[in-house]
Amino acid sequence: MADPTGIDALIDLMARLPGLGPRSARRAVLVLLKKRGQLMAPLAQALAEVALSAKDCHVCGNISTTDICPICTEPSRATGEICVVEDVADLWAMERGQVFKGRYHVLGGTLSALDAVGPDELGIPRLVARVADEGVQEVILALNATVDGQTTAHYIADALAPTAVQITTLAQGVPIGGELDYLDDGTIGAALRARRKL
Amino acid sequence: MADPTGIDALIDLMARLPGLGPRSARRAVLVLLKKRGQLMAPLAQALAEVALSAKDCHVCGNISTTDICPICTEPSRATGEICVVEDVADLWAMERGQVFKGRYHVLGGTLSALDAVGPDELGIPRLVARVADEGVQEVILALNATVDGQTTAHYIADALAPTAVQITTLAQGVPIGGELDYLDDGTIGAALRARRKL
Ligand SMILES: [Zn+2]
Ligand SMILES: [Zn+2]
Repeated sequence: MADPTGIDALIDLMARLPGLGPRSARRAVLVLLKKRGQLMAPLAQALAEVALSAKDCHVCGNISTTDICPICTEPSRATGEICVVEDVADLWAMERGQVFKGRYHVLGGTLSALDAVGPDELGIPRLVARVADEGVQEVILALNATVDGQTTAHYIADALAPTAVQITTLAQGVPIGGELDYLDDGTIGAALRARRKL
Repeated sequence: MADPTGIDALIDLMARLPGLGPRSARRAVLVLLKKRGQLMAPLAQALAEVALSAKDCHVCGNISTTDICPICTEPSRATGEICVVEDVADLWAMERGQVFKGRYHVLGGTLSALDAVGPDELGIPRLVARVADEGVQEVILALNATVDGQTTAHYIADALAPTAVQITTLAQGVPIGGELDYLDDGTIGAALRARRKL
């Protein structure tokens, strides 16, 4: 190809991104090569800065560029509600819905005997501790409507039962087998407003 | 969203790449955030290096990380053949075909009265000079099978007529209205092998 050193290596790296195959990675790199100053250099800079500064929030598991994420440090979000999500992608999807004003707990997956993912890996003991420590009144289980997601939701409900916190779950709007991150923002808002007790 | 500073700015930059909309840019950034060490940092590094070192070849217009590109400096490619292409993407497509062993001339576009793109902007006088300077025996016009591409091909053939160089064009395999960069590699090889005099 044009240049076996830098440019080909860059195409290979780009092709590892979701949604970009080898062909679209080549086209993306060509656009970058033609916009070296306006796009390629700023993108390199932004990636380098975020790669250095991004970290998992100690409290909720969200990814941000601060030790504790902006949602956990924002006083107005201490509403006594914690929304439990599987993944940061789901947290972002909830935020786009612009209905939930509380804080989050990002599990980072679901319980899986097959993959040896247990409650500790998902931070469930930490969630139980947060409910007491932060005076939480309601935990909203916003897990995907999949078998693993619902199994995990029931496990968390059982783990939280001794705390007497109210446990709710997204109700209306989440299609069977659907994943939060693919839902439109309005549907997520509707599902949150119509949440029901588990 | 999660972090109004670094991460959102990164998503906005990623969304400007071809093939990535806002949603796929978010998903790409999430994958990068989870693979900060293995993928995000190396990608930042590769982009920064290429942004600094990439340049247009003085001779042929190819983009590489050297002042004169590896194809122009490789002695074995002084075959007396120059392949004229519209864009670096087309040069890459030709190289993937692995049939052409000569050198290139990248026009960077096609003649267009509307956009005020004339022969000078496309380096056509420079191509005519190369034919004499490099002792070229054959110029292969590998332009897209579009009206603009074919108009430009005929203009170049006229400009080269006084040099008595043989002028050929890709024949078989390029569909009407088709663009080189979208062809499979085998078709490009076949079109090159079956090239005919213009
Ligand atoms: Zn947090
Ligand atoms: Zn060159």
